[in-house]
Amino acid sequence: MGEKYNALVNRLRDVKNLGTAEALLHWDRETKMPSGGADPRGEVLASVSRLSHELFTDDKTGQMIEDAAAELDGADYDSIEASMLRIVEQDYEKSTKLPSDFVERMSRATNDAHHSWVKARAQNDFSLFADDLTRVVELSREQAEYLGYDENPYDALLQQYERSMTTEQVQGLFEGHRQQLVDLIEAVSEVSDRVDDGVVHQAYPVALQREFGLMIAEAIGYDFERGRLDESVHPFSTSFSKHDSRITTRYDENWLNPALFGTMHECGHSMYEQGVADALDGTILGSGTSLSVHESQSRTWENLVGRSLGFWQWAFPKLKAQFPEQIGETDVMSFYRAINQVSPSYIRVEADEATYNLHIMLRFAIEQAIIKGDLPISEIPDRWNGMFHDYLGITPESDTKGCLQDIHWSMGGFGYFSTYALGNLLSVQYYNQAVADVPSIPDDIASGNFESLLTWSNENIHQHGRKYDTNELTQRVTGEEINSGPYIQYLTDKFSEIYGL
Amino acid sequence: MGEKYNALVNRLRDVKNLGTAEALLHWDRETKMPSGGADPRGEVLASVSRLSHELFTDDKTGQMIEDAAAELDGADYDSIEASMLRIVEQDYEKSTKLPSDFVERMSRATNDAHHSWVKARAQNDFSLFADDLTRVVELSREQAEYLGYDENPYDALLQQYERSMTTEQVQGLFEGHRQQLVDLIEAVSEVSDRVDDGVVHQAYPVALQREFGLMIAEAIGYDFERGRLDESVHPFSTSFSKHDSRITTRYDENWLNPALFGTMHECGHSMYEQGVADALDGTILGSGTSLSVHESQSRTWENLVGRSLGFWQWAFPKLKAQFPEQIGETDVMSFYRAINQVSPSYIRVEADEATYNLHIMLRFAIEQAIIKGDLPISEIPDRWNGMFHDYLGITPESDTKGCLQDIHWSMGGFGYFSTYALGNLLSVQYYNQAVADVPSIPDDIASGNFESLLTWSNENIHQHGRKYDTNELTQRVTGEEINSGPYIQYLTDKFSEIYGL
Repeated sequence: MGEKYNALVNRLRDVKNLGTAEALLHWDRETKMPSGGADPRGEVLASVSRLSHELFTDDKTGQMIEDAAAELDGADYDSIEASMLRIVEQDYEKSTKLPSDFVERMSRATNDAHHSWVKARAQNDFSLFADDLTRVVELSREQAEYLGYDENPYDALLQQYERSMTTEQVQGLFEGHRQQLVDLIEAVSEVSDRVDDGVVHQAYPVALQREFGLMIAEAIGYDFERGRLDESVHPFSTSFSKHDSRITTRYDENWLNPALFGTMHECGHSMYEQGVADALDGTILGSGTSLSVHESQSRTWENLVGRSLGFWQWAFPKLKAQFPEQIGETDVMSFYRAINQVSPSYIRVEADEATYNLHIMLRFAIEQAIIKGDLPISEIPDRWNGMFHDYLGITPESDTKGCLQDIHWSMGGFGYFSTYALGNLLSVQYYNQAVADVPSIPDDIASGNFESLLTWSNENIHQHGRKYDTNELTQRVTGEEINSGPYIQYLTDKFSEIYGL
Repeated sequence: MGEKYNALVNRLRDVKNLGTAEALLHWDRETKMPSGGADPRGEVLASVSRLSHELFTDDKTGQMIEDAAAELDGADYDSIEASMLRIVEQDYEKSTKLPSDFVERMSRATNDAHHSWVKARAQNDFSLFADDLTRVVELSREQAEYLGYDENPYDALLQQYERSMTTEQVQGLFEGHRQQLVDLIEAVSEVSDRVDDGVVHQAYPVALQREFGLMIAEAIGYDFERGRLDESVHPFSTSFSKHDSRITTRYDENWLNPALFGTMHECGHSMYEQGVADALDGTILGSGTSLSVHESQSRTWENLVGRSLGFWQWAFPKLKAQFPEQIGETDVMSFYRAINQVSPSYIRVEADEATYNLHIMLRFAIEQAIIKGDLPISEIPDRWNGMFHDYLGITPESDTKGCLQDIHWSMGGFGYFSTYALGNLLSVQYYNQAVADVPSIPDDIASGNFESLLTWSNENIHQHGRKYDTNELTQRVTGEEINSGPYIQYLTDKFSEIYGL
């Protein structure tokens, strides 16, 4: 490679390395930090994120990008070099729009908001979070102004996470399957007594849950030599490198699902990171390309694998050996039906597949109202509860199980939630393609061989890191655009069979 | 405060915050990081340490120091402002002597050396470490040249840790009590059968040891709201803030001492950090002033408290309740004698008080020979074993228990070891002063009240952070210079009584 390109790559490595330090400061805050460390940690995070932002947005970086572009002129689109330049140009344009002092103010505000959110959630008292959330919303509006938009400031926030999408398009994708979800849920509700999920609601000792989760994670291909599993209030995965990509979970001692499917979910995220090509590791291309694609991978392992009958044909005997008393006389078919019970519930991360996207559509609507200023912060709980009843037919019994359940707003993550629903759509599009390419995959899963699916995912999705955006990648992998058809088809087939519709 | 001073303080906060990120990257590497993460972690550490060094040594910082000095002219020596300026001037002078590329080369070399040391130690094969150690020694010599010295390059390395001392002075302090140690050990060896330490060498389940260690740590005043205890190969303490100062330990399931006294030792370090004045936290003054003073605090809690008869008058019933079978019929006096058995042994961190400083004197001599080039790297194991026999009368059975036991050389820490022995000397000087000031301290300890000693230490030592160097602080606290008299007196009294000499 040329000298100019190498100079750029070295500078980007420094930026990336500061970002990794920041990611570790976050991981530690969520998993290990003593409570007293909160305030100083906020200072450190604010400082490191500002320094990283200053280093990246320095005029020197801009000059280096120009110089490298001149040197690389004509490089193949798919090459690492051309891809690196393409992505850094986008990142640089986006980042230079945000002043350093704004980045630091946002970092400090979200650190405060994080702590008041934790407190508000624990005490079920939204008012403890309201002031800090107000500040984060103000900063998010300010951020939208810096980032720029045509008509809708929410576009600017959304495009931080899905560069090539607009609010209108997402609205269209959501409208395109909302009624079908509502119809499906209604059809199921009329025969809801056909499935009983009592088996998963029993005492499952945490230590045994953890042991089983570790076994499943290892079996499906999460590499513990390059990762680890910890506990946190809000489960997440974070990657410092393809060689150190970590997951967290949380345990409910009276419910099997959250930790089990949560662990498979986070494994999906981390296996994506662990599968990035070696040549991209440590560079700005060395991570998943977008939140939607990331979510497609977590949902693949959580749902398309973890909630499939085939998977449990392999896993059920192991579960029964781990929890002989709890499983008792339950057979694999009843267990499969139990973990797929459709039932409107309060917590997004615990929602079944049929209701999940409605949770997102609700947040999507509320976020737009917040950012537009149509919805005062203090009225969020009422609006949430009202809409929840409209969408899902039930009303949250507390804000902890309502508008305080998710960490995202405390992080300033407006625009983020949609990517979860988009990830659901993509997961089925990709999985269908995987089975079309490697027809043995369903049988492999049923016999405990997860390598064929993981290898296909590595080759078609993971290895590319950030080289291609969501749309490019989806076109390359499936020949189609993102759409809700396959997802609705999958849900209809699955739940018609389970509920005998 | 003036504008120039504030600008300097803000810049120093950024440097400090990057240093905190670096400290967390280290802590995580030793306690939580999956093995695969080693190489990328080395890259991140190298990058962050270089960026931090560049930020601090930038000409702008120099200008800011000059501007702040002009603005502060005449400020009281003891004020935070004057102290900040005094210390930053010293730090800046030292740091600007090291080129950034050197800092990064050293960071990378010590990351490699760390991993080959871990491997060599596990496999008892010094040759696996030799090449990386050679590189670190070369870089340490280069470092001495950058730092500058009058005659002896080892002075430059030593003065990184004890700014105001020379190799010759340390040599003098060591010579001043070496023969007395040798005589004491010889006198004890003639009546060694008077103490039996069998009680501590039994099966002590790790989980119960951990529980007991946590209880003791909390009792003596280590604040777990502002800290935590983890396991690592080499125990250490690290501080991200006075509000987040952590310790590690390691357990031997067949020996009570290492984790118990190791935990009290690391508590001493972290309680020093937790006791720094609020106004200094997050600034460059907000940590312990030197390694020797730090070690005086760890030794105070490990030895002057933890190995005292008074402490066990309080703690022994609790130990017996935790380990009823192991303690059995042993009484507190026999237990006190057992934990104070004098017996030449291989591992420095497990050495008794009488032999400990000889371990340091050996390293001090070997390090000087390595840096001078009188001792080829490959001959370190033979030299170590030969000198060990000369000093302590026994020969290590393996390099893992010999020259591979300590982490320091892999970290490039030449000059560091002496501070352990100096800390022993200081611990007794300070403790004697504490008892002169607050005569109830020994009785307080015997009744499980550790607050009087901790409060005295907070007020006289901890709160000052880095405001005063070792010599200034020692003069302020005791009215004397560092000297070996009180330490030898303490050892002679204690072991004469225990062994009936």
